[in-house]
Amino acid sequence: MAKSQAGTENLGVDYVVVFKIGDTEKTKAAQLFEELVQRLSKSGLATEVRNGNNHTLLIFVKLSSEEHLLAEVYRSRVRDWIHGVRASEPPQDTRAALEQDPLTQAERLRTIHGLITHPQSEHGAGITPGKGRWTNVESIFALHDHAYNKEWIKKWSTQYLLKPEDLDDIRDRFGEKIAYYFAFTQSYFTFLTVPAAIGSFTWLVLGHFSIWYAVAASLWTVVFVEWWHHQERDLATRWAVRGVSNIDNKRPEFEHKHEATDPVTGETMYIFPTRERVMRQLLQLPFAIAAVIALGSLITLCFGIEIFINEVYSGPGKSYLTYLPTVILCTAMPFLSGLLTQAATKLTDYENYETEAQYERSLTSKTFVLNFITSYLPLCLTAFVYVPFGSVIVPYLDIFALAFKPGSKDIKAENDPTLFEINPQRLRKQVIYFTVTAQIVNFGMEVVVPYLKREGLIKFKEMQLKRTGTINAVTADDPVEETDFLARVRNEADLDTYDVYDDLREMVVQFGYLALFSVVWPLTPVSFFINNWIELRSDAVKICVDMRRPTPWRAESIGPWLNALAFLSWLGSITMAALTYMFSNDGLGPDGKPSDIKGWALLLSVFFSEHLYLGARWLVSTAISKIDSPGKQKARREMYETRKKYFAESLRDTDKLASASGMGEGESEGREEITRTSLEEEARAASLKSRTPEAKFWSRQRGWQDAAEVGRRLIEKDVVEEKAAKEKKEL
Amino acid sequence: MAKSQAGTENLGVDYVVVFKIGDTEKTKAAQLFEELVQRLSKSGLATEVRNGNNHTLLIFVKLSSEEHLLAEVYRSRVRDWIHGVRASEPPQDTRAALEQDPLTQAERLRTIHGLITHPQSEHGAGITPGKGRWTNVESIFALHDHAYNKEWIKKWSTQYLLKPEDLDDIRDRFGEKIAYYFAFTQSYFTFLTVPAAIGSFTWLVLGHFSIWYAVAASLWTVVFVEWWHHQERDLATRWAVRGVSNIDNKRPEFEHKHEATDPVTGETMYIFPTRERVMRQLLQLPFAIAAVIALGSLITLCFGIEIFINEVYSGPGKSYLTYLPTVILCTAMPFLSGLLTQAATKLTDYENYETEAQYERSLTSKTFVLNFITSYLPLCLTAFVYVPFGSVIVPYLDIFALAFKPGSKDIKAENDPTLFEINPQRLRKQVIYFTVTAQIVNFGMEVVVPYLKREGLIKFKEMQLKRTGTINAVTADDPVEETDFLARVRNEADLDTYDVYDDLREMVVQFGYLALFSVVWPLTPVSFFINNWIELRSDAVKICVDMRRPTPWRAESIGPWLNALAFLSWLGSITMAALTYMFSNDGLGPDGKPSDIKGWALLLSVFFSEHLYLGARWLVSTAISKIDSPGKQKARREMYETRKKYFAESLRDTDKLASASGMGEGESEGREEITRTSLEEEARAASLKSRTPEAKFWSRQRGWQDAAEVGRRLIEKDVVEEKAAKEKKEL
Repeated sequence: MAKSQAGTENLGVDYVVVFKIGDTEKTKAAQLFEELVQRLSKSGLATEVRNGNNHTLLIFVKLSSEEHLLAEVYRSRVRDWIHGVRASEPPQDTRAALEQDPLTQAERLRTIHGLITHPQSEHGAGITPGKGRWTNVESIFALHDHAYNKEWIKKWSTQYLLKPEDLDDIRDRFGEKIAYYFAFTQSYFTFLTVPAAIGSFTWLVLGHFSIWYAVAASLWTVVFVEWWHHQERDLATRWAVRGVSNIDNKRPEFEHKHEATDPVTGETMYIFPTRERVMRQLLQLPFAIAAVIALGSLITLCFGIEIFINEVYSGPGKSYLTYLPTVILCTAMPFLSGLLTQAATKLTDYENYETEAQYERSLTSKTFVLNFITSYLPLCLTAFVYVPFGSVIVPYLDIFALAFKPGSKDIKAENDPTLFEINPQRLRKQVIYFTVTAQIVNFGMEVVVPYLKREGLIKFKEMQLKRTGTINAVTADDPVEETDFLARVRNEADLDTYDVYDDLREMVVQFGYLALFSVVWPLTPVSFFINNWIELRSDAVKICVDMRRPTPWRAESIGPWLNALAFLSWLGSITMAALTYMFSNDGLGPDGKPSDIKGWALLLSVFFSEHLYLGARWLVSTAISKIDSPGKQKARREMYETRKKYFAESLRDTDKLASASGMGEGESEGREEITRTSLEEEARAASLKSRTPEAKFWSRQRGWQDAAEVGRRLIEKDVVEEKAAKEKKEL
Repeated sequence: MAKSQAGTENLGVDYVVVFKIGDTEKTKAAQLFEELVQRLSKSGLATEVRNGNNHTLLIFVKLSSEEHLLAEVYRSRVRDWIHGVRASEPPQDTRAALEQDPLTQAERLRTIHGLITHPQSEHGAGITPGKGRWTNVESIFALHDHAYNKEWIKKWSTQYLLKPEDLDDIRDRFGEKIAYYFAFTQSYFTFLTVPAAIGSFTWLVLGHFSIWYAVAASLWTVVFVEWWHHQERDLATRWAVRGVSNIDNKRPEFEHKHEATDPVTGETMYIFPTRERVMRQLLQLPFAIAAVIALGSLITLCFGIEIFINEVYSGPGKSYLTYLPTVILCTAMPFLSGLLTQAATKLTDYENYETEAQYERSLTSKTFVLNFITSYLPLCLTAFVYVPFGSVIVPYLDIFALAFKPGSKDIKAENDPTLFEINPQRLRKQVIYFTVTAQIVNFGMEVVVPYLKREGLIKFKEMQLKRTGTINAVTADDPVEETDFLARVRNEADLDTYDVYDDLREMVVQFGYLALFSVVWPLTPVSFFINNWIELRSDAVKICVDMRRPTPWRAESIGPWLNALAFLSWLGSITMAALTYMFSNDGLGPDGKPSDIKGWALLLSVFFSEHLYLGARWLVSTAISKIDSPGKQKARREMYETRKKYFAESLRDTDKLASASGMGEGESEGREEITRTSLEEEARAASLKSRTPEAKFWSRQRGWQDAAEVGRRLIEKDVVEEKAAKEKKEL
């Protein structure tokens, strides 16, 4: 088993807790440290302490007894069962159950992580890194399984497609949350073959702004989003995580205003008034407006300068000035984005959510707004402002002229509005930039730069050590046989924490370009297809090499990003229609001039496209919901087995009961010889004896044989009367 | 208890099965009848047979033993529990459980209905009225509880609002499906106060086509639909029917193509290929087109004739001819609607659904399409064809002139297009017709006509009997003390079956007028408000007097009608915007002429309105989902109690386990006197002895005290080095 191998390599260490001494007063630090190890020990964890880099201590943690793990696993399985994640009650004998259905590495690590971080009331040590009284605890991380990682990367880089088993493998190692990212990217990658093929054909045969491509691409986004939605649920069943989002992870940072007793359950509730939270949430509006204004004006400014320089200005230094907007954008944008992201985090903190899921959802939606602006606004400006209104707006750009050479002749000459012409290539160039250049740059920033940085840092440290000639104080006390191991752990402790939502966001933004603008340049999906093949592999490398081993969280979906995908796909139905109509004559409107764009025709195409989109979405989602899938089959099997078990148990007694009351067949034999007249006599006699009308009514016919007999007579009589009536009439 | 009273009055009869002799050969009929009573008896039911009207036999059915009921109730509760309708396992001792939580009349009746109709494999008698081999069984119905009904109607007619207890009462008597109808209508009625008030104000102050009214009404539809959605779920929890739609009621009419063994559960599946069903479902498209063409052309024809006669024609007989379109519509429309409804039913039968729910959903959607056309098409024609294009189209209406007097002078004179003028009052008059006149007519058709018919029929029968002078053959054999009772039952057997979806459809169509067209005449909601007060009461009367007692079905919502409401509300955001824009100058477009309507402005207002609507809907549904409600509290309480129970049970052993492994506190005492040096020695010694590097690693520090000690030393050392480094730098 891979686990034992990892165990040998990592000396059986389950987690490493990094304790930062920093500026904390030393006695206080020692006291805190003591409490930390004591708490860990109380939760059933063995500890070993070693020196770390940068004034930290590394606390190596492993389970002191497997019994403890079993208890914790059982507890978590009971919780799952009650929340409907597991179909049936977990067997009391966890050890036997685990032999049947062994713990995955992810489940084991998550359980131990729980032992470290859960509050003491829930059998944990209550260590919350960087929060509350544990600000000195920098982080908690598991160690990489290098042998496995190497094998993993090797396997992937020689393999064209990821199989479901590969995804299961990731899930077993890194947890469902990360596995969902890979599953999504893999699904997206596979689906990209279709628009890539259509796009290539369009590019070769139909040209840009083809209505056929627009329709096909829109339909593809619908199918993809709906399919993924289906796939996501299916994976949730496959990985047995359906409903885990209902198990609330309380945020330790949550601050309650007052306590109250739940009138229903009698539990103590920690309440933060909804009204107050809504008031705080309303701050999202000014935040969004501020973000739009800040980022929007920066983008518009650069856009204006760029157009001015490229298309209006022809004075001195033009070749240098061309780079001015890029420089402004490259320096100001990351700064502004960072500032706004910080503000978004602060705002989300301030909104004071009770659970991690709510917090994450709120933060994601803010991040999405920021990304939406920075990613799509430049293209929107070109498509929907520059092209239709360019000839009206551009002449006003001479305000920039003042900044350069006031009153200069060569500017004025160009400023004549009649001389200005829209550059129809502009939009396409921009799309190509965002879908090819930016992706390559991004890849560089994500993979190549960290690699160089890491290598450089190691070299630098070595050189520094050599130069100073002193012994490294950190490693001085290391036992010889542990040197390699500790060096590796110290390196891992220096790495960044992996956030899978960053990678997901990147994919969603990419999907957005495809959904919103790909009609401008139909090769877009081809570029993404190539990019994502590499992306899938480079992300695997990133997780293994550039990042600390992530905690294997569970998830039952890609979370709020699914909504973002659906939103982008919807918006695409509007932009694609608008672009196709406006640029149908290669960027110059129906009659060769953008000014000939008809308002009503534009709106009508948008209106039609949007409603066609909504209709198609409804159809596709209905069709997909009817497809049987392994996940559905699994759910059905579980349901059936539970049902069978309970029915068998519950109905045993009931059946006994029914047979005891003995009706039907058995009765019919003993009574056969009784004649009709005797029966009626008997009935009449009984009815006379009984007192209530009800008893009289029910005693006229005894048993079904009587009823059948009476019925037969009535039937006979009925037909006779019918005849009699006819005869009467005939007479 | 009401039950015992009903029991006395109805002689303890639970159900009446109507067996129709008809033209069936008498021995065959007798044989079938015998099988029928035998089967009923086998299912634990006692029977009594009496003569019925029109060559039928009435089989009175009651439970032969309460034991049997208990077993059946228990079985159904286990099924509920497994499907998640009940939160916890039903106790094995049903009798005790029933004393705590007694059966409602509805549950009792539904259970007995199940005993009669369920297939024999599920402990029922397998009687399916009118279907399969039981075509002779006309119907199965329970008897009205007249004492209760009288009280109910009296209470309601003196009461302004229905309280939740009144709805609970209906639910206990008539089942959740009917209770949902009353709950919905009550909710809708209460909500109508808001648009009624706004509408009155608008009518008095702002006039027609007020944009403010349009916005308010649209917003109101959103709030109402979302609120009802919430209310519906809340009621489902209150009535403990949450999830009942998952319990499939198999349709006995379902015909399978082949049998197969489910690869998952091993059960035999009866399969009808999906592909074939989809092919059959595709017939819905030609059906819808045919319906649109048939109904549409009828409506358009009448519409054209009407306009021609009223506004173009001025020849002889105009005063009579005015009624021509009404006559055509009143004769052809019910015929055509009936034909199409029949076709819809046939088509749905042909689609061969496996469960009742699927069948009902499919039929409802078809009915909705038919109703949509007949109800809203006339208004749409006026608003979106007649007004904007009237002056273009009307001149072509002279084709009708050929039908009247070819070449007549007085027609030609009027035919000059320049003389034709749009009648702006037309739309308003039509809306008033549909929202006031049609509602009154409908009330008459629904309540007054059946009443007169019933009274007339009784009178007619009496007169006939008197005239012929013979004794009634049907009642001839009746025991004297049963005469009244049997007369009453025979009357009830002659009544119609109540279909709650007919009433719901009426309400949804009414809601549609409000959502789509009320801006034309803002008093619309006032009219509906008055109508619905009466409607609620008259429907109660209808159920009690005009109809057989309905079988108390369960339901967890108003079913597919919620989607219809949401759809109408959405469509309303489009039509209201269009109407408001087009008629903002009292029906004559912005500049006083309909021809001045700007396409782009119309589309822009529609586009804005629709997206505002979607945004508002999202906001409202988010806000409403956060409201705590009695239903949610109940669900939480049940969840909590289940959780508490299971946790207590499950964790007992686990806690024992954890305490047995004995970690933490207990350990710290015995070891306190051990000095640091001795500890380290011990550790080192141990590490030397052990073989693997892992064992060595973990044996260096024993227990948390060691780790704390080592940590303290490292912390001390760290600070010293920090200082040393600083000193070095300073030197």
